[in-house]
Order: sequence, then C-alpha cells, then structure tokens
Amino acid sequence: MKLRILTVGKLSNKQIRLICEDYFHRIGRFVSIEAFHVKQEKIASLSDGEILDKECDRILDKITARDHVVVLDKSGRQMSSEIFSEYFNKLAIGGIKEVTFIIGGPLGVDERVTSRADLLLSLSNMTFQHELATAVLLEQIYRAFSILRGEKYHK
Amino acid sequence: MKLRILTVGKLSNKQIRLICEDYFHRIGRFVSIEAFHVKQEKIASLSDGEILDKECDRILDKITARDHVVVLDKSGRQMSSEIFSEYFNKLAIGGIKEVTFIIGGPLGVDERVTSRADLLLSLSNMTFQHELATAVLLEQIYRAFSILRGEKYHK
Repeated sequence: MKLRILTVGKLSNKQIRLICEDYFHRIGRFVSIEAFHVKQEKIASLSDGEILDKECDRILDKITARDHVVVLDKSGRQMSSEIFSEYFNKLAIGGIKEVTFIIGGPLGVDERVTSRADLLLSLSNMTFQHELATAVLLEQIYRAFSILRGEKYHK
Repeated sequence: MKLRILTVGKLSNKQIRLICEDYFHRIGRFVSIEAFHVKQEKIASLSDGEILDKECDRILDKITARDHVVVLDKSGRQMSSEIFSEYFNKLAIGGIKEVTFIIGGPLGVDERVTSRADLLLSLSNMTFQHELATAVLLEQIYRAFSILRGEKYHK
C-alpha cells in the first residue's frame, strides 16, 4: 500500500515540519508514504469562498478517479486508534493500493472535495490548527501500523 | 484566572517543546499560565501499575483541595472548541481563580487522579502520544481565549 499526504500549502511552522518529517520516516518503515501539496491561495482581495474554490480546483487536479481518498473534516467520522488501524487492514484486504489523505488549509476544504471523499475523517470535535492536524494525523497513521504489526508503541 | 499545566516528566521532544513554549507565550497574553511537571517514573523493573501509582502520588501532592482540576483522559468528555471556550467563561463566572490541567505520561493516569478531576476532558477518540497531546491542548486553550476575545484566530 502507498499513502499520499496532500496538504494545501507547505508546512510553514518549522517545528511541525520536523515532527512530520520524523513521522514520515517512521511510517516509511511500514509502508510507502509520500507528501505533496497544492499551492495555498494568498490573494488577499478574494473572499473565503473564492479562495476555497481555487484551492479545491488544485486538489481535485491531483486526484484520479481510482484513488481512495480520505479527507480530514471536523464533521466526519471519529474512530478510535484501533478502529483506524482496522480501516487500513480492510483497505488492504479490499485490494486498495493507494490512499490519499487530504488536509485543507486555514479555511478547510469545500464541498467538492468532501463529496469526493471515500472517508471523511474527524480527529476531534475540536478545531485543530491545520498544520498541527497534519502532525496528529501522521502520528495516528504511525500508531495504526504499529498496532497492525503488534509493536509496543500503542498502549 | 491562572492556568497551570501539569505534565508527567519534562517534554523530551525538542520540537514539541518549542511549539508548547510558543503557545505558552501566546496564551500568556490572555491569561496567566504556568507549566510544571512531576518526575516520570523510570525504574524499569516496576510494573505499569506500580509506575502509575508512583506518578499518581506525585501528581496528587501538587494539587490542593481548592484547585479546579481538568484531567486529559480518552474516556472523558469531548467538546467543540466553542464549548471549550464557554467552559472557561463559566469557570470565570463561577469565581474559579486557578485551573490545573493534568496530562499523564506514556501510561496515562490512574483512577485516583481521574476521580479527583472536576472535568475529564477528551481531545479525541484516538489515543494521542502524550507530548503531542500537550501541544494540542495548549492550542485549544489558545483558541478558546481567542474565541472569548473575539479575535480572528478561530474560524
């Protein structure tokens, strides 16, 4: 299985970037993982809706019809870490070869992206700063594969 | 109001420590906040239960009867960021002057600590690495006060 982590804009916070790089390295021991991003729209004169629309176009350009797409969204489904690990197991059993995780920018993502999702995943009822959410997601992916491999990391 | 953040052990991950220091600085513009920790038990020959017991003694030594205590616990109550901000408002209205947040170590906290809590707070159905959970909690506290002050941070 190959995982792709798609963010809107590069991670601008150096510390969060280093944390994420560490998890990429750790997850890479279990499964192939790749980070990529679309440009964050920064034209200040645009409305939030117009910004989201442009970012959404860029996201959808990066997704093919056969991709399995997981979008982080506060209104999505919450899972325990154990259930999240089972989710990967089910995907593997179902023959899914590539999973793309999408994390929106400061404004989130618009409906065209959420409606394309095979899974809307919520990390919390709380709204997380989007870069911190990326680090949390990667930690959960690492935890999920640790659980599947029966490693000691998860307690 | 004064906030106290009590962790088991110092934050060992340098990046997470820097993120937390940044949030301490930002929260400090709204409210007095202080970090302190109890020693993490590292005697390898002890069982998990014995380690938790020792850490629990140290935590309880730091809490007085009049403290308002919030313990991070996966089985606790989940709140939206908006409800979490209202919680601070209610505490202030209720005349609470000090709030102590407790974040356990790798093993969490034992029942003597959770039963002392005025609030068991869950950040997620997922199990977060405890240092990352500290960063997430601080971001939520910062977000809560930003909401109360009507600042632009929270969307």
